[in-house]
Amino acid sequence: MNEKKVQGKIKIDVEPIGKRISLEKPTNGLKAIVGAGIGIKTVCGGQGVCGKCRIIIMDKNINPPNSREEKMLSKSEIDNGVRLSCQQVFDRDMKIYIPASSLSEEQKLQVKGVEKELEVDPPVKKYHLKLKRSTLEKPESDLGQIKRVLESEYNIFIKDIDFEVLKMMPDVIRKNSWDVTVAVRDGEIINIEGGDSTERSYGIAVDLGTTKIAIFLMDLNNGKTMDSKGVMNPQISFGEDVMSRINFAMQDPESLDKIQSVVVEGIREGIKKLCSKNSIKTSEILEMAVVGNTAMHHLLLGFPVRHLGLSPFVTLAEDPLSVKAREVKIDTAPGAYIYIPPPIAGFVGSDHLAMILSTGIDSMKGNYLGVDIGTNTEIALAGNGTITSVSTASGPAFEGAQIRYGMRAAPGAIERVIIDEDTFVPTVQTINDKPAAGICGSGILDSVAELLRTGLINERGKFNRDSKYLCRDDKDEYQFILAHPGDDNGSEVLDKKEPDQKGEKKGSDKLSCDDGVITITQKDVVEIQLAKGAIRTGIDILLENADINFKDIDGIIIAGAFGSYIDPRNVMNIGMFPMVGLDKISQVGNAAGVGSRMVLLSNGQRRKAESIAKKTKYLELTVFPSFTDHFVTAMQLPKPKEII
Amino acid sequence: MNEKKVQGKIKIDVEPIGKRISLEKPTNGLKAIVGAGIGIKTVCGGQGVCGKCRIIIMDKNINPPNSREEKMLSKSEIDNGVRLSCQQVFDRDMKIYIPASSLSEEQKLQVKGVEKELEVDPPVKKYHLKLKRSTLEKPESDLGQIKRVLESEYNIFIKDIDFEVLKMMPDVIRKNSWDVTVAVRDGEIINIEGGDSTERSYGIAVDLGTTKIAIFLMDLNNGKTMDSKGVMNPQISFGEDVMSRINFAMQDPESLDKIQSVVVEGIREGIKKLCSKNSIKTSEILEMAVVGNTAMHHLLLGFPVRHLGLSPFVTLAEDPLSVKAREVKIDTAPGAYIYIPPPIAGFVGSDHLAMILSTGIDSMKGNYLGVDIGTNTEIALAGNGTITSVSTASGPAFEGAQIRYGMRAAPGAIERVIIDEDTFVPTVQTINDKPAAGICGSGILDSVAELLRTGLINERGKFNRDSKYLCRDDKDEYQFILAHPGDDNGSEVLDKKEPDQKGEKKGSDKLSCDDGVITITQKDVVEIQLAKGAIRTGIDILLENADINFKDIDGIIIAGAFGSYIDPRNVMNIGMFPMVGLDKISQVGNAAGVGSRMVLLSNGQRRKAESIAKKTKYLELTVFPSFTDHFVTAMQLPKPKEII
Repeated sequence: MNEKKVQGKIKIDVEPIGKRISLEKPTNGLKAIVGAGIGIKTVCGGQGVCGKCRIIIMDKNINPPNSREEKMLSKSEIDNGVRLSCQQVFDRDMKIYIPASSLSEEQKLQVKGVEKELEVDPPVKKYHLKLKRSTLEKPESDLGQIKRVLESEYNIFIKDIDFEVLKMMPDVIRKNSWDVTVAVRDGEIINIEGGDSTERSYGIAVDLGTTKIAIFLMDLNNGKTMDSKGVMNPQISFGEDVMSRINFAMQDPESLDKIQSVVVEGIREGIKKLCSKNSIKTSEILEMAVVGNTAMHHLLLGFPVRHLGLSPFVTLAEDPLSVKAREVKIDTAPGAYIYIPPPIAGFVGSDHLAMILSTGIDSMKGNYLGVDIGTNTEIALAGNGTITSVSTASGPAFEGAQIRYGMRAAPGAIERVIIDEDTFVPTVQTINDKPAAGICGSGILDSVAELLRTGLINERGKFNRDSKYLCRDDKDEYQFILAHPGDDNGSEVLDKKEPDQKGEKKGSDKLSCDDGVITITQKDVVEIQLAKGAIRTGIDILLENADINFKDIDGIIIAGAFGSYIDPRNVMNIGMFPMVGLDKISQVGNAAGVGSRMVLLSNGQRRKAESIAKKTKYLELTVFPSFTDHFVTAMQLPKPKEII
Repeated sequence: MNEKKVQGKIKIDVEPIGKRISLEKPTNGLKAIVGAGIGIKTVCGGQGVCGKCRIIIMDKNINPPNSREEKMLSKSEIDNGVRLSCQQVFDRDMKIYIPASSLSEEQKLQVKGVEKELEVDPPVKKYHLKLKRSTLEKPESDLGQIKRVLESEYNIFIKDIDFEVLKMMPDVIRKNSWDVTVAVRDGEIINIEGGDSTERSYGIAVDLGTTKIAIFLMDLNNGKTMDSKGVMNPQISFGEDVMSRINFAMQDPESLDKIQSVVVEGIREGIKKLCSKNSIKTSEILEMAVVGNTAMHHLLLGFPVRHLGLSPFVTLAEDPLSVKAREVKIDTAPGAYIYIPPPIAGFVGSDHLAMILSTGIDSMKGNYLGVDIGTNTEIALAGNGTITSVSTASGPAFEGAQIRYGMRAAPGAIERVIIDEDTFVPTVQTINDKPAAGICGSGILDSVAELLRTGLINERGKFNRDSKYLCRDDKDEYQFILAHPGDDNGSEVLDKKEPDQKGEKKGSDKLSCDDGVITITQKDVVEIQLAKGAIRTGIDILLENADINFKDIDGIIIAGAFGSYIDPRNVMNIGMFPMVGLDKISQVGNAAGVGSRMVLLSNGQRRKAESIAKKTKYLELTVFPSFTDHFVTAMQLPKPKEII
């Protein structure tokens, strides 16, 4: 369940469904609120006239609809708890479901994940020291005095000092009249500044995705997210997916340097802009935490990746890494480190670990599945104190690749599809209400689900060929027409336009595949079957391995930006997930980004993440005995009667 | 007492006087012989005809002189145990004294210090690992497997890995068929190489002097000194002494960078040449140890030095430092460290600590003084389990600076002076027997001692003006003429030449100050009084502070290259040292260089050095209550009857 800050003074902590949503005010002091919640789109400014802010209130004591709502919503919607967010006053704890279509575009691009309270206990802490000028009678070295005062006043024992900080020390001390602040990380002095700068302790958390990089500027004193920024991963110019980047980096050391330097540059520039906007110097950044899949993690640090691209796809190190930011050429405080939580195995990276950490599925009672949908989909099954993870090669279909009219989730992409079960008229919704330009992942998923629900395709994914919206191209491939380019969004335009504008089709039962229509092809359906089949295989093998039935699942948590936009009903309807029931599925947005902030802010969370990584068992699907059987079954679509 | 390897199969371990000299053969295995000993000059090839290899045998059972020796030596010499080294057969333990004049020129430039046996227990050790290719069924990360094998096969637990080594790891492993050698330092992997390279473990020890840098290439497996090289400290172009270099470095950050980079370049080039000569790659250097005074240590690491140049002259850090060699831009194994033992305080650097460590005065029974003569002379008094150190500003007079005809110890420098007490005819010896070009430190010290012994100056250092070798210059300053430039070395040339060649002086009682004579001036004598006074003040205050009399001193150890060349008799005769007796003074050569090799080779010696640094008390002379009184007294020269 997504979390939502509806009014200034009310905070809704969103936990996976099954947990009560808290409406308590944020506590202050050392409690941190991580994340900014997901807003709801009120295009009309809250007048109740556009109907775009539909939410589902999953509380028994639901208020009756007001007149605005009665006008905008169907009876069936009202009966099912659908209301307009702009007409609600949240004055008590309640569970709400926010469909992706109610999110504003900006929010779709900057999904920030659940909020999470945690004890702020950052790995770097600052100490203000009033030193004394050394004398001939009692000579004492600069470092010696700092160590002595830290020990006597703060009970902090120094084991190391960063080399660059040691170099700065005498000048900083003397230029500031022996009044300085030092930053200490695990017994190492990593910065020295003049005066009392203890109020200014900042950190950077990064969720380094294959496509997008989310950068968070954090206040290490109170744990607040001061600002955040999403930038495209510039490595995309060397290949859209992980494998093509690995292949590029494998060519020669120069290519590895190049692909490393562009992502470093992207992060560095993002940090610079965030800092400048918030009047912070990059030299005030005391710590960074970066989560990402193992390939992103390798390419950020400049590690060779040949072994990642070849079986058995092992990572270089299973350990949490702390690397000096200057070794990676990212501007921070002189001695600052980048902390990278441990990956789990092979392709199961620290982003997956961060998801487990932030959703808390490892410590919930019951059986929970955590799913990160992507080119590789990572799935964790947590239950009875154990966690098992798998990685499935679900492919890039959900990113629009290998789909004839596929595109990324950019303005104009068809993101929602409904097909009338009687007339087969498709209704589509595009991102930002721009003219249809292609189909993005959630639209493709919806299309397949709707084709199945309306009987246009059968359980094997084959078109039944009984609609005028079906056409065949010159390769004789059947396709279902969703839209013509330039069509208005959200209305049954094809039906209306066809007799008038497509003069040559008048009287025809079929529309033409020509003229640049946007369609779902037979091959697209197969691609989605392969993709969802891979994910379902992962889930089924996890369940078989743990010897539990899907009915014993207490919740499935879909993490990641893409996972936030898909319709959970359709996820079940195409059989990607077993039919666990809608109330058991929650979409938590960028859980990895939340996890990255948690390990930035808290030593305790680092230890917890490291212990999760250690206790999580990795299961290699392709060597599981019943893998092929599972995959063949999982490729099938559900029977119509199973559809909800 | 210097040590000398006289015949191939016999080794003389030289210990400070008072300890028996061992003639045992070197032991092998894990025992190391540090240092190469000091050879004796046999210009004539051992024929007993040149008399330049005089030694003093300090053994009661001295052999009578043979005919060669009777011819070459005076009766008084023979009575005092002087013999020719080339005529001796060392077939039993004995104590010998080797005058600096018996050392060859090459040995004077490359004094290597006493040999010392120690347990080889280097901080970096190599382990050969036969790894297994990871499989899909049992995937294991590269680092994970290395850690597991190190733990199970060698009981070595890894806490860290160098970032650059981690980067190299996958390629090195795969290019060498999973057969690798890793180098581990204090739980950190600092190198990885293909195959079994455990036989090739090398280290570099450096004695970083203000004038000269001694670099030793060491085999970390057996502790042997494989090779060594002495290079001039290139910082000399920014000032001959420490203070002028500090002043230069203080100007701006660029100057500091410059003065750092030249010394780094000097060391780097020295290492490169040593490695190339011995068929070693610089990437096989696993560890370095550098000792030096605090200014050299700061300037090597690029630390600011302003605070070193101003009262209270404190060092930046009293801790032992381990700095990655790549941070200082010295080529070594990728993750190798430079270890720098702790300084004692202010100007008392790790070279002094290395001297205390290598001479072992900290653990001897009795009271021992260790003296490093230089621009700053460090003196340690060890006794009854305590060590106290002082630093005295003895000035650069012993380096030839501020002396009218002073020069460094280069060929042509007058290094020995004898004045006939009846005729006042000076006899001088120059370095390398080259025509006299100036006077170096030991010659200046000899001159003052001889002027005093012959009554030409009085106890206050004033010339008595009763020799024809005295002249006055245009400033009316008295000077004693030692030589004319171009004079042959070692004969009473002035006396012979004067009547013939100095025609205008015929019949005159006085020689002229003109014509480029080489003289000792009244001011030179005062400079030496100041220098020796500073050193004597340090000794006297150390004794007063410890409440002991100079007669309770069991030994004085003179360390350092310069200290090896001076005549210990004259050191006492001018009052630089109290009259402890010749048998109590030993000259141990480059004891700091030996100490640097000891801390390179042995963790135990590092811990010992660090504990010595901690327990050594630093005494600031200038704030000692009776400092001025002591200094005034110490400036005086001894009375003639005290001279030995």
